[in-house]
Amino acid sequence: MKIAFVGTGVMGKSMVINLLKAGHAVTVYTRTKAKAEDLFPLGATWADSSAAAVLGADAAISMVGYPNDVAEVWQGFLSAARPGCLVIDMTTSSPALARQLAAAATAKGCLPLDAPVSGGDRGAREGTMTIMVGGEAAAFEQARPLFEAMGKTISLQGGPGAGQLCKLANQIAIASGMVAMAEALAFARANQLDLEAVLKALSGGGASSWALLNLAPRVLKGDFAPGFYVKHFVKDIGLSLEVCRELKLSLPGLELAAKLYADVQAAGDGDCGTQALARLYFSR
Amino acid sequence: MKIAFVGTGVMGKSMVINLLKAGHAVTVYTRTKAKAEDLFPLGATWADSSAAAVLGADAAISMVGYPNDVAEVWQGFLSAARPGCLVIDMTTSSPALARQLAAAATAKGCLPLDAPVSGGDRGAREGTMTIMVGGEAAAFEQARPLFEAMGKTISLQGGPGAGQLCKLANQIAIASGMVAMAEALAFARANQLDLEAVLKALSGGGASSWALLNLAPRVLKGDFAPGFYVKHFVKDIGLSLEVCRELKLSLPGLELAAKLYADVQAAGDGDCGTQALARLYFSR
Repeated sequence: MKIAFVGTGVMGKSMVINLLKAGHAVTVYTRTKAKAEDLFPLGATWADSSAAAVLGADAAISMVGYPNDVAEVWQGFLSAARPGCLVIDMTTSSPALARQLAAAATAKGCLPLDAPVSGGDRGAREGTMTIMVGGEAAAFEQARPLFEAMGKTISLQGGPGAGQLCKLANQIAIASGMVAMAEALAFARANQLDLEAVLKALSGGGASSWALLNLAPRVLKGDFAPGFYVKHFVKDIGLSLEVCRELKLSLPGLELAAKLYADVQAAGDGDCGTQALARLYFSR
Repeated sequence: MKIAFVGTGVMGKSMVINLLKAGHAVTVYTRTKAKAEDLFPLGATWADSSAAAVLGADAAISMVGYPNDVAEVWQGFLSAARPGCLVIDMTTSSPALARQLAAAATAKGCLPLDAPVSGGDRGAREGTMTIMVGGEAAAFEQARPLFEAMGKTISLQGGPGAGQLCKLANQIAIASGMVAMAEALAFARANQLDLEAVLKALSGGGASSWALLNLAPRVLKGDFAPGFYVKHFVKDIGLSLEVCRELKLSLPGLELAAKLYADVQAAGDGDCGTQALARLYFSR
C-alpha cells in the first residue's frame, strides 16, 4: 500500500522500518526532519506536511505525542485524503477525541481507526507490538496487513474510541505495575540484598511482570534512557484519570501513580524512560 | 531423606506430594488431621506433634500460617531434632523471627534455613515454585535436593532472614501488581469493553504480569477460590510494612495495597484468593 506516516520518534521510526520491510511505500512527515533521515536510505520519501504526505495515499498513520498533535495531523490528513483512505491514529490519545475524529473522517468518506500500541521500543523494533483497535470491522480488515507488519497481537476492541480505552486500561495496569517494580527494588536495596539475585527470584513466580523482566534490569544497570518517555506516560495517566472522572470511577492506584510520576517529572526526569520511577525511591 | 513436614494446607499438601514422588520418606503433622488424610495413601506417615515428627529425621520443614505458628512448630522441632538436622521454614514469615530461630537452631547443632516460596497453588502442585533461601551455604547445599523436588528457581539470597526479605520484596511487587490488575479490569468494565478481548490485548505487551495471566481470567470467570488466601497476603503485607517501619522506608504503593486488602477482608473476603481485590472495585 501507499502509506503516509506522520511522527517518526522512538516508536514511529521502527514502525516505518517494518512497513518498508513488508513492501509498502511510505511517505513520512515529522516535526523535526532530522528524526526521519535514517529512513530515507531505507526507501522512505519525505513530504513537507501531513496534507502533502497523504496525497494519493491508501492509508495515513499518525504516531505523535499528544492529543493536540493528533488533532492537528488529522486536520492535514482529512484536508487532502482521497475518499476510502484509511486514517489511523496509533498515538495513545483521548477516547473522546478518537470518537470526534472518527466522525469527521467518516463525513469525508475516509475510514478511521484508533489503533494505539503497546510493547515499548523493543516491541516496535521487533514488530511484536500489541495493537488495540477501535472502529468499523471493514476498515479494521482493510488495515490488517499494515497492523501485521508492525505488531503481533492485533484485536478489534469495539467501535471508535475502544482502541484508546483498551490502551488506557493497559496504561492503568502498567502504572501500578511500575510502582510494584520500583517498590520491590527499593525494599531489596534498603535491606542490602543482592538486587540481581532478588530480581532473578522474583522473575520466576507470582511477582513476575513485563516491567520486572524488561525494565528492572535497566534500573540495575543505571540505564534510564527512554524506551517509553516519562512525559508521555504522564500524559497517558492524565487521559485515564479524565475518563475516570467522567465515569465517577475511583482508581486509587492510578491516582498514586499520577502523583509519583509528577514527582519524577519534578525531579527533572521527564525525558527519561518510565523506569526512572525507581530512582525516585532510591533517592529518598 | 527422612523428612518431618508440618503444615499440609493448600501449598503444603502439594509440596509433600512432590517430596514423596522424589523418593523421600515424609512424616506429617498438621493442626487438623483431616487436611493430611489424602497423603497417607501416597506413603506419608502421621505423627501427633512437631516434636514427634522430627524424631530421627534428616530434615524438618514448616509450612504454616503465621509467625506465631512458625515459632511454635520450631519449638517442637528443636526439642527433638538430632544434631545436624536441617530445619527449614518455608512459611512466609518475619525476617527478624527467622534470625532468632536460626540462632536457636544453631545453638542446638541444627542447620537452619528460611526458605519461603512463590508460585501459588499451581507452582506448588507442578513443582515449579520459586524458593528464596536465607542461611549458611553448607546447609543450603545439603537441602538442595529437597528444594529441587518442590521448586524450579532456587537461590541462596544471603544469611539467616535473607530468604524472608527476598520473599517480602516479592510480596511488595505482587501487592501493587494486584492493584494494577484489578484497576485495569475495573476501568475496562466501567467502559463496557469486552473483558476477554482486553485481557488478551494486555497480556501481550508492557502491562503483562503473572497476575494478569493467571488471576485475571479467574476474576472473569467469577472464581474467587483461594490459590493464595487474602488473609495470608494481609499478613505478608503487614510483615513488609513492619520491616519498612524499622528502616524508615516509605512505600506508598504497599501502604495503599494494605488499605485495599483491609477493605477486602472487611467485605468478608479474607478466605478468598487474592484476586478478590477485583471484586472490591466491581462493587463500587
